[in-house]
Amino acid sequence: MNVGVDYYPEHWDVSLWEQDARQMQDAGITLVRLAEFAWSRLEPTEGNFDFEWLDQAIAVLARHGIEVVIGTPTATPPVWLTHNYPDVLPVDNKGNAIFAGVRLHRCYNSPSLRKFGERIIEQITRRDASHPAVIGWQTDNELAANDCHCENCTRLFRGWLQKKYESLETLNHEWGTVVWSGEYSDWEQVKTPLGGSPHLNPSFLLDFRRFSSNAVADFNRFQAALIRKNSSGKFVTHNLWGYPVTADYYDMFDSMDFASVDYYPATDFLDDSKSKMYHGALTLDLARGVKRQNFWVMEQLSGTPGCWYPMSRTPFPGMIRAYAWQSVSRGADAIVQFRWRSARIGAEQFWHGLLDHHGQPGRRFEEFVQFSREARKLAPLLEDTTLKHDVAMLFSHEQLNAFQIQPQADGFDYLGNFKRFHSAFLRMGVGVDVINWREDFRGYKLVVAPMLYLIDDAIAGKLKGYVENGGTLVLTTRSGVKNMNNVCLPDRLPNLLTDLAGVYVDEYDPVGKDVQNLILATGEGLASSQWCDLLTPLTAETLATYASEYFAGEAAVTRNAFGHGAVYYIGTVLDERGSQVLMKRVAGDAGIDCELELPDGVEVAIRSSEERRVVFVLNLSREPKEVSLPARNYVSALSDRRILGESLKLEPGGVEILVEVNSTVTASA
Amino acid sequence: MNVGVDYYPEHWDVSLWEQDARQMQDAGITLVRLAEFAWSRLEPTEGNFDFEWLDQAIAVLARHGIEVVIGTPTATPPVWLTHNYPDVLPVDNKGNAIFAGVRLHRCYNSPSLRKFGERIIEQITRRDASHPAVIGWQTDNELAANDCHCENCTRLFRGWLQKKYESLETLNHEWGTVVWSGEYSDWEQVKTPLGGSPHLNPSFLLDFRRFSSNAVADFNRFQAALIRKNSSGKFVTHNLWGYPVTADYYDMFDSMDFASVDYYPATDFLDDSKSKMYHGALTLDLARGVKRQNFWVMEQLSGTPGCWYPMSRTPFPGMIRAYAWQSVSRGADAIVQFRWRSARIGAEQFWHGLLDHHGQPGRRFEEFVQFSREARKLAPLLEDTTLKHDVAMLFSHEQLNAFQIQPQADGFDYLGNFKRFHSAFLRMGVGVDVINWREDFRGYKLVVAPMLYLIDDAIAGKLKGYVENGGTLVLTTRSGVKNMNNVCLPDRLPNLLTDLAGVYVDEYDPVGKDVQNLILATGEGLASSQWCDLLTPLTAETLATYASEYFAGEAAVTRNAFGHGAVYYIGTVLDERGSQVLMKRVAGDAGIDCELELPDGVEVAIRSSEERRVVFVLNLSREPKEVSLPARNYVSALSDRRILGESLKLEPGGVEILVEVNSTVTASA
Amino acid sequence: MNVGVDYYPEHWDVSLWEQDARQMQDAGITLVRLAEFAWSRLEPTEGNFDFEWLDQAIAVLARHGIEVVIGTPTATPPVWLTHNYPDVLPVDNKGNAIFAGVRLHRCYNSPSLRKFGERIIEQITRRDASHPAVIGWQTDNELAANDCHCENCTRLFRGWLQKKYESLETLNHEWGTVVWSGEYSDWEQVKTPLGGSPHLNPSFLLDFRRFSSNAVADFNRFQAALIRKNSSGKFVTHNLWGYPVTADYYDMFDSMDFASVDYYPATDFLDDSKSKMYHGALTLDLARGVKRQNFWVMEQLSGTPGCWYPMSRTPFPGMIRAYAWQSVSRGADAIVQFRWRSARIGAEQFWHGLLDHHGQPGRRFEEFVQFSREARKLAPLLEDTTLKHDVAMLFSHEQLNAFQIQPQADGFDYLGNFKRFHSAFLRMGVGVDVINWREDFRGYKLVVAPMLYLIDDAIAGKLKGYVENGGTLVLTTRSGVKNMNNVCLPDRLPNLLTDLAGVYVDEYDPVGKDVQNLILATGEGLASSQWCDLLTPLTAETLATYASEYFAGEAAVTRNAFGHGAVYYIGTVLDERGSQVLMKRVAGDAGIDCELELPDGVEVAIRSSEERRVVFVLNLSREPKEVSLPARNYVSALSDRRILGESLKLEPGGVEILVEVNSTVTASA
Repeated sequence: MNVGVDYYPEHWDVSLWEQDARQMQDAGITLVRLAEFAWSRLEPTEGNFDFEWLDQAIAVLARHGIEVVIGTPTATPPVWLTHNYPDVLPVDNKGNAIFAGVRLHRCYNSPSLRKFGERIIEQITRRDASHPAVIGWQTDNELAANDCHCENCTRLFRGWLQKKYESLETLNHEWGTVVWSGEYSDWEQVKTPLGGSPHLNPSFLLDFRRFSSNAVADFNRFQAALIRKNSSGKFVTHNLWGYPVTADYYDMFDSMDFASVDYYPATDFLDDSKSKMYHGALTLDLARGVKRQNFWVMEQLSGTPGCWYPMSRTPFPGMIRAYAWQSVSRGADAIVQFRWRSARIGAEQFWHGLLDHHGQPGRRFEEFVQFSREARKLAPLLEDTTLKHDVAMLFSHEQLNAFQIQPQADGFDYLGNFKRFHSAFLRMGVGVDVINWREDFRGYKLVVAPMLYLIDDAIAGKLKGYVENGGTLVLTTRSGVKNMNNVCLPDRLPNLLTDLAGVYVDEYDPVGKDVQNLILATGEGLASSQWCDLLTPLTAETLATYASEYFAGEAAVTRNAFGHGAVYYIGTVLDERGSQVLMKRVAGDAGIDCELELPDGVEVAIRSSEERRVVFVLNLSREPKEVSLPARNYVSALSDRRILGESLKLEPGGVEILVEVNSTVTASA
Repeated sequence: MNVGVDYYPEHWDVSLWEQDARQMQDAGITLVRLAEFAWSRLEPTEGNFDFEWLDQAIAVLARHGIEVVIGTPTATPPVWLTHNYPDVLPVDNKGNAIFAGVRLHRCYNSPSLRKFGERIIEQITRRDASHPAVIGWQTDNELAANDCHCENCTRLFRGWLQKKYESLETLNHEWGTVVWSGEYSDWEQVKTPLGGSPHLNPSFLLDFRRFSSNAVADFNRFQAALIRKNSSGKFVTHNLWGYPVTADYYDMFDSMDFASVDYYPATDFLDDSKSKMYHGALTLDLARGVKRQNFWVMEQLSGTPGCWYPMSRTPFPGMIRAYAWQSVSRGADAIVQFRWRSARIGAEQFWHGLLDHHGQPGRRFEEFVQFSREARKLAPLLEDTTLKHDVAMLFSHEQLNAFQIQPQADGFDYLGNFKRFHSAFLRMGVGVDVINWREDFRGYKLVVAPMLYLIDDAIAGKLKGYVENGGTLVLTTRSGVKNMNNVCLPDRLPNLLTDLAGVYVDEYDPVGKDVQNLILATGEGLASSQWCDLLTPLTAETLATYASEYFAGEAAVTRNAFGHGAVYYIGTVLDERGSQVLMKRVAGDAGIDCELELPDGVEVAIRSSEERRVVFVLNLSREPKEVSLPARNYVSALSDRRILGESLKLEPGGVEILVEVNSTVTASA
Repeated sequence: MNVGVDYYPEHWDVSLWEQDARQMQDAGITLVRLAEFAWSRLEPTEGNFDFEWLDQAIAVLARHGIEVVIGTPTATPPVWLTHNYPDVLPVDNKGNAIFAGVRLHRCYNSPSLRKFGERIIEQITRRDASHPAVIGWQTDNELAANDCHCENCTRLFRGWLQKKYESLETLNHEWGTVVWSGEYSDWEQVKTPLGGSPHLNPSFLLDFRRFSSNAVADFNRFQAALIRKNSSGKFVTHNLWGYPVTADYYDMFDSMDFASVDYYPATDFLDDSKSKMYHGALTLDLARGVKRQNFWVMEQLSGTPGCWYPMSRTPFPGMIRAYAWQSVSRGADAIVQFRWRSARIGAEQFWHGLLDHHGQPGRRFEEFVQFSREARKLAPLLEDTTLKHDVAMLFSHEQLNAFQIQPQADGFDYLGNFKRFHSAFLRMGVGVDVINWREDFRGYKLVVAPMLYLIDDAIAGKLKGYVENGGTLVLTTRSGVKNMNNVCLPDRLPNLLTDLAGVYVDEYDPVGKDVQNLILATGEGLASSQWCDLLTPLTAETLATYASEYFAGEAAVTRNAFGHGAVYYIGTVLDERGSQVLMKRVAGDAGIDCELELPDGVEVAIRSSEERRVVFVLNLSREPKEVSLPARNYVSALSDRRILGESLKLEPGGVEILVEVNSTVTASA
């Protein structure tokens, strides 16, 4: 367990460094990330490098037992670079270069960015790789697909397409450019999607998003290779920004040792909808799924965010600690708070750190110190633990991109709909692994694969094999609609999955916000919206029928016994309660224990190793909550008290961490 | 009666064509529109033409008894054309060329568009004009004023102004450019309204809209002349897009043989306001009025529209048939469904056709087949029938444009206010002809001329003559405000119409959304909003006074006996109920039978010839409705049953088509 | 007392001038402002001047006893100027020149604007300065900071920064450009804030706003100097546009003889919130504070405004007169109505004048004539009177700009929050002087200094001195946050004011729209929102504590005895009622008579000289109101009747003007 802060020594007078480091040490901080925006300090003018201040900062920290992660500074090309080499700046879809002056103002495909980026990374890694306090590297900062239309991107996109399609004839055919006379007769005519019209060819748009995602993944690989060349044995990671994003994180992280995430849960949950309440849990599960292993939080909420937009509520009492433990509970092995002290200068003055501008410890800082103390105590207990689940959900940046290009129905939202399934399990205390849809999912008892809009034989075959071998699979509406080039498939929906689902879609209605009623065979009523498939079961049995509008009586949800397994097909978008009711049935069917009923805002997560199971129970709501756990013998890892499970009372922001007594190591170990 | 589909053979493998044609024939289809977006297939590269695929497609269709309308492909300049000749692309009001890649990306005044457009039209007409299956031509697709600011448009606009005003002195005077020192001292200074500020001179803005409208009408004439040169004896039409539009359709269609309309009624009328409910009827009446004769529907709704935006509801059961009959009931002589099968490729993948992507017949297709069968049966009955009405409403693209430039009051909407009058008659079963305000309206018992904001002596004189000769005329607030150059007239409102209305406006208040009360002489109360004229009757009598605010007691609606006729002046914008109450009184006054009271969503329309009257009764709502018709002897043309009129029950989407038994031809003929 | 109109002879046929002048004279008009948009008439082409029409217009007016204020026409560079010298046009933050064609299309720093502007001002002043009817000059029209990014502005901004910071090192340090590697290494790299991103450095953004404000103030000085050179002895003023504005009016008016304001109160107060109701009063008080003396209204509402956007309600009966008297009551010594007759031409056709387009007198005109007659009668009474108040509020364009750059919390609005204090006094009948925060405020019994976000030792010292000497001071949340370069200060809030306030901010929460409860020591409850400081009193006593959320019980409002005075610190943003309750207590504490309780929409203002006190009582609401004045002997200056004070009944739009009988001059004098 690493506990740290993001720190910008270059923003503060050198006279403060020593006292900052001492105060960090006192607060239990053992890690600092730094330098990721400091290019103009490391290379004040072209080719003139200055590492002394960084050496000094690292030395001060090291003297206080603090280790360091250095960020490569490529997210902020300095003014001399953009001024002298304007190809660094991305070009928007109207053909205009972005103005410098903020950050992230760089095209990954810019030759100048590559050239000067390579040099600064070379310099910094050569100088600092051998420093014992430097334990690893962060590439850049919150990389994203950059939607750039500069001449370099245009040329490279053309090359990317030539590699993918080989001939213009194939491209024209696969994209269906014949529509509206969009056929290319010369490669020179192929450009990026300029103008940004949503009416552009969807196959073209999807490929450009893939190219943009590939470009940033390639840029990350480029950095990772440079770092590893000079700094072998030290880790390389990257801090991802939250979901949804157009870039494919699975691809972007293939060159990383582990994933890191910047975690800023919403602070203003006063009027929160429940789905917003569980957004954080999904973000953390997604982060864990990026590399299917524990991860780091490289930036953890420390105060109210806001600056150029109005600030939101400050984190409520207890929440600094609770959100940190939430991150740990879902697989974080390091919590790095953003940031040490609120900036007095620059655009992020009101993106608050643990300390306010004045630097005196306050409520938020004390909460952090409590967490830090607890984390140190529990570190041995958590060593080698991770999350092991019976349920996998298949997430796909490609589906997300495709749905952003064509939004289907009023209210239809890929991530939102995905989250509704995730929350349903969460409320039953059932842990879920969220993994890339292209990964191996054998071994899970239950696989939920929502909205497989784009599909190919490979995934269809894998799903089939999984079910044949006894797996339980959940499929939903808007599956099997398209091939991977975003072209509609020629058979009845769900096309390549019809056989597996044992049902086909006779007709559909994008009902949008018109709420529809369903009746389960048990007579229980459910509600749905957004989309309604009217289903014709082939081999499947009907679990629920519609009970509203002209399609009352039509099949809405089916179950198909297939091989040794079973496939559920949900032909509509159930609301939150409906999703829970159905997933409880499905989970039970798959042999998963799902008897827990957690109140709103309460989360349970279990980290375990071969030796022990550590149960985290968190109340992330603003009201006191009572939780009934399975009656077992626990020891509280925080208080060392024995707890019988059953009814556990948690204040707002309350955290309990329980070790099952049959575990070989306890908190007191 | 022609029944057909829009079909894109170039989007489908040639192996499907034969089976498509057979299935069309089986479905009763006798007409296909094609090729209007196929330029890149007809001329794959500059000067290289390929008509063989089109020959083959026409041949396949012809073998199955299907006739063909060919669209000129100028709505989609191919990539080679825009790439090599960028003057084809329109320039927006910031001076930037529109990016190609969608469609409609062409400036009508582009020399290259004219040159290459002329050549492709020449080629296709020379090749296909003599083909017996080719019965006519469609120019381009959904032409609109294009608001282009390219150098050609700038030069031509300048020439247009020189022709209109002759001297810069006159232009400066007529536009009132002295305001804000906008006077031109050299023709070179005259440009299109760049920047798009709403603060620009309104006379300038209106003239530019006229120029833009003229430009597209001229482009249509250019195409019509080319087609007729090679294809004499075959019709030329164009498919207009729905209202409101800035281009003047009356002008745009002067070169056409008849009008066609693309008819996409809203599918999501679940929470519909009544005014939206009758939008379709007004659209169809407007279409019939374009040439004052029957028209075609060149694209008729066949499934849920949507694609780049969320899809809306799928058409409810019965509505595919009901909307087709609605079109016929208001004067359509051909129904061409858009489209045969939903596209698997390109941006319109989810703009659904009669068939879904998989091509298997479904509910919507079967509804169409029913319509097709019925249409074939009723064709003889409908031959030579058209709609004959006692009421005319004067529609003006110029007023629409002027009100868009200066929106008057919160909520004031020309088309919406126009529609409220139209719906009032529709609900009384009174048919209305909607005609160009510059046309001859003698012979009508009642003329409604709402919001004659721009006015001149010609129209004032015509209205006067009409009333003098016994006509009944309805005028409204915001009439007589401006001269045709969008300059305020110097006398009291309604200026040139004061004498005729027998009333003047003492003061006005743009009340916006503040609802006002009125009291009729009968004591009945009405409600209005948007605008209140406080009237001073000269020779008119007061029919209604205001009953709210500081103007309570002031005259709001008047009636003036004038010559042998009468003029109503409505000094405010009545709500829906108020419009109905007043129009019932006005229609009664004009000797029009208006005793019918149709329930929400039920429409009645009558097509007649010298020999017969065919009464269409449609329930376009989602609830069963009951209609009381005048007690006469009818025969149902659909079922051949005798019906006594009186109480007719119609299911949602229900259609009844009645022939009065004193007609000489019946459905069984 | 001057009563006049804005008049555009150049918009009307010369044949109308004589009759217009006669009608003006009959209406009691003694003043006309003209020519401020007439550049194209004064200089139709480059270097060709035509003043004859203006001479003639002035002559016609003068013959009717009407004096003239001439506006310099620089707000509307003519077409030949922008066409031939495009540097006149401002460049937006994307680097694109604004298109000409409206007005205000000029960069103040344009060499061509300066050159040709100088020449036209020279010409007109040389010609007209000696005309006896010409009494003064207006510079330009509604000057505003123009946010221009042209190369001249870029160069001058750079120079402005060089002057301010001397070295790039200092600039980098003061702005904190080290954040995100924004450090400049060469002056050439320094540009205006291109791109317009809100993420740009806030110190940079604030300095650019200062530069833009300085630029317009400098342009005004440039004009004033030119005018005074040729026209000594005649006044120079400028007509300011309402608040909020980014330009610093205190700076902009240092070269003016007095301030003028364009006063357009909202006409549609049907559903008005109370804060909107008192917006006009604040605007007028701000205008009086610009030069701390009486002012002119150079444009006074005369009819419904609107044109390119929907028109709003017409002014209700009585309001033309009432708003004119309101202006006088708050210090206006001239009322110039905008405009004489509504324009028939150009973009402002529906920005109505006293007369409608037809020119016949109507209700609004008659109301004006009543005012004009009354004003003439009261002129001697009002001579040398002005407003003298015990309360000052400190207004700051710099705070306004800083808060626009960083909006703090949801709903936080500098001017809105400022207005809530102002209204609180207004409802107690307590007059307030609103003055520049940098001015001398000694002598006031009470100073309210809300939201002193930017602060320096100078202001902190002045406030301290004021309180030490017995003053009462109100401070609020978001004070002492930053230094003048928009950089956060290093101590606890309110930083430089902590000692004075006797309290510091322990923690804060940007609560936004979450309403919070407070309890006064008296037990009375108050409500607040936007922001909550949790206070730790040092030497202050707690007046109110929070009664909601996790900070219930924490101090929210304090009072600190300091020297001979007292300081209130309000740590949250009270709602309207809360502000009134607290300000009543504060005012009482400061020895201010605040026993009046005025009903909604009723305003009282007192103009006095050494000889007399003239009390204005206005009902600006739409309902009849009853006001209880202190029981004294008054004479109505309007009716000459004696009035005892006590209960005064006022109709909607009602005005009473009372002279206390102990005054030496009465209305009949």
